[in-house]
Amino acid sequence: MIKNTKVNAAILIIGNEILSGRTQDTNTMSIALWLNSIGVKVNEVRVIPDIESTIINTVNHLRQINDYVFTTGGIGPTHDDITAQSISKAFKLEYEIHKEAFKILEDYYKVGEFNEGRQKMVWMPRNANLILNPTSGAPGFNVENVFCLPGVPSILKSMLGGLKNRIVGGNPILSHTISLRTVESEIAKSLTDVQDNNKDLEIGSYPFFQAGKLGVSIVLRSEDQSKINKCSKEILKFIEEKKIKVVDR
Amino acid sequence: MIKNTKVNAAILIIGNEILSGRTQDTNTMSIALWLNSIGVKVNEVRVIPDIESTIINTVNHLRQINDYVFTTGGIGPTHDDITAQSISKAFKLEYEIHKEAFKILEDYYKVGEFNEGRQKMVWMPRNANLILNPTSGAPGFNVENVFCLPGVPSILKSMLGGLKNRIVGGNPILSHTISLRTVESEIAKSLTDVQDNNKDLEIGSYPFFQAGKLGVSIVLRSEDQSKINKCSKEILKFIEEKKIKVVDR
Repeated sequence: MIKNTKVNAAILIIGNEILSGRTQDTNTMSIALWLNSIGVKVNEVRVIPDIESTIINTVNHLRQINDYVFTTGGIGPTHDDITAQSISKAFKLEYEIHKEAFKILEDYYKVGEFNEGRQKMVWMPRNANLILNPTSGAPGFNVENVFCLPGVPSILKSMLGGLKNRIVGGNPILSHTISLRTVESEIAKSLTDVQDNNKDLEIGSYPFFQAGKLGVSIVLRSEDQSKINKCSKEILKFIEEKKIKVVDR
Repeated sequence: MIKNTKVNAAILIIGNEILSGRTQDTNTMSIALWLNSIGVKVNEVRVIPDIESTIINTVNHLRQINDYVFTTGGIGPTHDDITAQSISKAFKLEYEIHKEAFKILEDYYKVGEFNEGRQKMVWMPRNANLILNPTSGAPGFNVENVFCLPGVPSILKSMLGGLKNRIVGGNPILSHTISLRTVESEIAKSLTDVQDNNKDLEIGSYPFFQAGKLGVSIVLRSEDQSKINKCSKEILKFIEEKKIKVVDR
């Protein structure tokens, strides 16, 4: 029996370095894969600059229309790290020293190393809930449904596991991939028919080029394994009729 | 003499495969780097699903507030490729066979290979301007300030060059990077002072971890080289005072 609970999220990447093309974002993929695994569907991703009013307006919009919002970036020690301050304003909360975070970083650094720059990282919205950082000490935080994570990919990844019990997901989103030695145009018509016949299942078609050969991966996504099985059967039927080689399934 | 012309753009990535974490987007970086080189600043990136109403609403919003909008994805032959149809609706234009595109693909494919699936790729908004595709034949298109490109990164990249004369950029955005053997917290205070002293220049601070060593890259961005030079001097001054090693500049 599949419960019909849909839980969704938006990801908000904060950082001029992504918009300028200097840095390749990989946090979207890490967060999206993790959310999928706990039954949360990503509705939307936005990348915005380090501008306070833009952060405030975007967060306030996204948190109204999504169950969860995950931000990345802007919680370090430098002048361009303005996420915590902006979130405080978005929620109309005091921006102040978080005592628990202060204690964590005071313990983390050697005597004399917990300098002014590092102390900036314990300024947060009043009563924010901390997200522990097993890699580099400085915690992230959440206020209501907005979870603020760092921009450095390895640190971000190490923090996701600790969040699991704080995110209430729906049914995990299952997927099945059928990879074929063909081109999209050969299967487009048949695939449309299968999609029309399976309206509540998501069918994606993605061309690939691997080891010098063209192929297409068909990806089926649903919360319901039986729907994936039924759809998969229909696809394999027309694939067999067309004498297309299945590379992987 | 620097003209004060700001030209900006939004990038709209259309595709469930990015939102699910299945596929790593790299098109944002390719487009952003290219736009920077011709003096166009990326204000915002959004990733949205293959849902017609979402595409229509997002395109209609972004094209009003940006000089240019670049979409990627959804212009292939399969049922989940709905960008051209959605753009037609966004602009209230007929969605119809584009004669020039038809001619291009008829010539591109061998006799008998220009099948129904491939013919879907010549359906476009009425009077769309084609964007030629030197890699795989099927063109992209633009309507007014909205430019629609494919999702496959290598094909997309090959099409950007041909757009150059159709995008009117402002002054190229110049950047200069100073890489240091330090951590952000050591330079945070001094960097804030330099930013306060150079308000119309963008200073980014990005930690890195390379060959086992921590470092920070400071990135200065402006249309005005003299401002970058002035700011760079101020940074190198405090770096020298702090006896921090410069790795690269």
